[in-house]
Amino acid sequence: MEKRKFILDEKDMPTSWYNILPDLPEPLPDVLHPATGKPVTPQDLEPLFARELIMQEFAPQRFIEIPEELQEIYRVWRPTPLFRAHRLEKALDTPAKIFYKFEDVSPAGSHKPNSAIAQAYYNHKEGIKRLTTETGAGQWGSALSMACMFFNIELKVYMVAVSFHQKPYRRVMMETWGATCVPSPSPDTKSGRDALAADPNSPGSLGLAISEAVEDAVSRDDTHYSLGSVLNHVILHQTVIGQEAKKQFEMADCYPDIVVGCVGGGTNFGGLAVPFVKDKLNGSHPDTQIIAVEPESCPSLTKGLYAYDYGDVAGLTPLLKMFTLGSHFMPPPVHAGGLRYHGMSPLVTHLLKLGLIEARSVPQIATFEAGIQFARTEGYISAPETNHAIRAGIDEAIKCRESGEAKTILIGHSGHGHVDMASYDAYLSGKLVDYSYPDDKVKEALHQLPKV
Amino acid sequence: MEKRKFILDEKDMPTSWYNILPDLPEPLPDVLHPATGKPVTPQDLEPLFARELIMQEFAPQRFIEIPEELQEIYRVWRPTPLFRAHRLEKALDTPAKIFYKFEDVSPAGSHKPNSAIAQAYYNHKEGIKRLTTETGAGQWGSALSMACMFFNIELKVYMVAVSFHQKPYRRVMMETWGATCVPSPSPDTKSGRDALAADPNSPGSLGLAISEAVEDAVSRDDTHYSLGSVLNHVILHQTVIGQEAKKQFEMADCYPDIVVGCVGGGTNFGGLAVPFVKDKLNGSHPDTQIIAVEPESCPSLTKGLYAYDYGDVAGLTPLLKMFTLGSHFMPPPVHAGGLRYHGMSPLVTHLLKLGLIEARSVPQIATFEAGIQFARTEGYISAPETNHAIRAGIDEAIKCRESGEAKTILIGHSGHGHVDMASYDAYLSGKLVDYSYPDDKVKEALHQLPKV
Repeated sequence: MEKRKFILDEKDMPTSWYNILPDLPEPLPDVLHPATGKPVTPQDLEPLFARELIMQEFAPQRFIEIPEELQEIYRVWRPTPLFRAHRLEKALDTPAKIFYKFEDVSPAGSHKPNSAIAQAYYNHKEGIKRLTTETGAGQWGSALSMACMFFNIELKVYMVAVSFHQKPYRRVMMETWGATCVPSPSPDTKSGRDALAADPNSPGSLGLAISEAVEDAVSRDDTHYSLGSVLNHVILHQTVIGQEAKKQFEMADCYPDIVVGCVGGGTNFGGLAVPFVKDKLNGSHPDTQIIAVEPESCPSLTKGLYAYDYGDVAGLTPLLKMFTLGSHFMPPPVHAGGLRYHGMSPLVTHLLKLGLIEARSVPQIATFEAGIQFARTEGYISAPETNHAIRAGIDEAIKCRESGEAKTILIGHSGHGHVDMASYDAYLSGKLVDYSYPDDKVKEALHQLPKV
Repeated sequence: MEKRKFILDEKDMPTSWYNILPDLPEPLPDVLHPATGKPVTPQDLEPLFARELIMQEFAPQRFIEIPEELQEIYRVWRPTPLFRAHRLEKALDTPAKIFYKFEDVSPAGSHKPNSAIAQAYYNHKEGIKRLTTETGAGQWGSALSMACMFFNIELKVYMVAVSFHQKPYRRVMMETWGATCVPSPSPDTKSGRDALAADPNSPGSLGLAISEAVEDAVSRDDTHYSLGSVLNHVILHQTVIGQEAKKQFEMADCYPDIVVGCVGGGTNFGGLAVPFVKDKLNGSHPDTQIIAVEPESCPSLTKGLYAYDYGDVAGLTPLLKMFTLGSHFMPPPVHAGGLRYHGMSPLVTHLLKLGLIEARSVPQIATFEAGIQFARTEGYISAPETNHAIRAGIDEAIKCRESGEAKTILIGHSGHGHVDMASYDAYLSGKLVDYSYPDDKVKEALHQLPKV
């Protein structure tokens, strides 16, 4: 019998996060202050973030120890399994070996808690009693709700109004873990009140929700803000995924030729990928193909501009050098809510510029075809975001069938789809549509970029 | 660091199911034919069930080998983890050690696939191309949908109409795995058409859905019927749970003093409990306290009659000697849909009569209080059914705090609550109510019992 599961013992869980910054052949471009255009200092960020997280954002050391108190919480669900997809391989009639790293087993159902508990922990250590955040589809909001509960921190989540009403289960999860979740725009902030005055039925947007969460955080001394994606320290925390996967491939006595993950803000992909990028850089595995997969309708990596841009619509955040579709770009309503973001993590952007990873975009319907094929072979129902990675993984396995190559493929299985069944319903009833992104649309963004 | 997870290797997964029938100090009462009142023969059951399943229902041998093809599918998610609930223990300030056996990790999210895949397998082996079943809240229907997909069997699920409309996510899960799910009463059977003629807006009932599924199955040569609870062979398949748990307690170097599970039809509890009952019977652990926990509103074990009764409303099934509230009893609309059944597995009934297990009932609101406490310490959000077991486990741990005893408690964690968040919403918004079962209500059932 061939093994299906590669399970690490708790004692083999990584005890440090891997920081790729010192290993990069070229340093990341500076982050700029939105008012001055000068590089931001750690002090500039202190009203929003815990000092330890700011240090991690710019850290020079290769490994950062995971505090024991935090490891204890990781052990609630980590190490996560690595599965061999024998049944999918057989259905595809491919010589490829397909593996998937399964983050679904966290209580919140995705990779998001890997950073959420770290952010809650460091804020707790600094005496912060309250956090604010925004959430779109609700994965990040629910993960941070659980994390704040573990550290007895009050949390207020500003959830994009249209999702708040469409996805009540995510809101109830947040409340089950003790958080408060309000639809954004809300009457609780000036940004929210202004938006409601302009349109009492505003559906909201992630950019607006960020504005509300930031405004709330800076208005109170006991409160910080928390961001679940994009930033270096978030990818840092997510490196437990890739580090574990590498140990599990040692158990399986092989190494991936191809690593695929889905990208929205880029931190699930980043956390899976950078431990493998490390092996490319140190020459031990120089030829690994590492593929970031994004929606065709929101193609920041494949069609975006490489430029300084804001992280939010209102232009409150520091300026980040990244692939961007413009901070005013409103992504179409694809079901992979976690991938609906105009920009891309500066670190993932940089890895692409350096040729260490590649990028690919896929249309929505094809991702659900892949998700259904996965569910009907491997059993598990995947998140719409995760289906992007599965699509690319299946495509690579089909190429292997055609070429006869027995490549080893690793899919980042970032989360389950249990509370996204409405999207499967839309697919199965033929109501799902594809949204294109016209080639020349990015020109609009060009005119809206901030001057630096 | 104290270990949190006790994970068996795939090669240590049980290779046989444990059949308690030959170990019982007194045999189970006969199952009677509803028309003749005589003991049923295997032949009587062949229009409905695969021959191998009928043999298992009455099997004399202590262990029944799990076919390798079936083990391969169990390995998609089994062995399941045993967790030590350190965080819950700390919150309860109890000297008790609390463990939970975590069936949530199956693709369908509960213990149900343990029997679903076995039933699909044996029907497939006999050339059956199509199955029918009923489902209430949808756990069984979705588990059997996945199982039938693995063996390329067509499946039609009759889902109680009110649940069909209230819980669309479960229906979509079934469709994702390729099954057809219709609301019952449906126009597809005579039973359904009669019910619709009487009331075009009938909300349906489990009894009516059983009638439809059975009628459909007997009307076609290529079709069998499948039942997800109550019967001996279903408990047999579920014994992988208790067998694994015992091996995991060896890893943890202890043995439970108390085992608790929730009961509706009784097979999740039975599968967890009977391997421990075996140790009571053989004298190796005679004092283990094994507790079946049921809703106060549907108290078959604690207030029911011990009598021969039908398994369904229409009186189509064989007569089973069991604790029953009467086959016409309509349980109130508690959120633990899987526990809304008038009867109880004859085997679980028998174990209670023999004094090998005990029974307890709990009110609905208290189960959600327990579920919230569990989610806020251990992280995981549990199914409303599972919250009954958690309630009793917490109650026992509190008794230990008061007595100072460091007992070891095992909770059967039968499934997750990801698609039951509406019930948590009702609890958190104060809308949940308790339903009592008046002491004299069972007298109504007394007059409706079939004459045998």
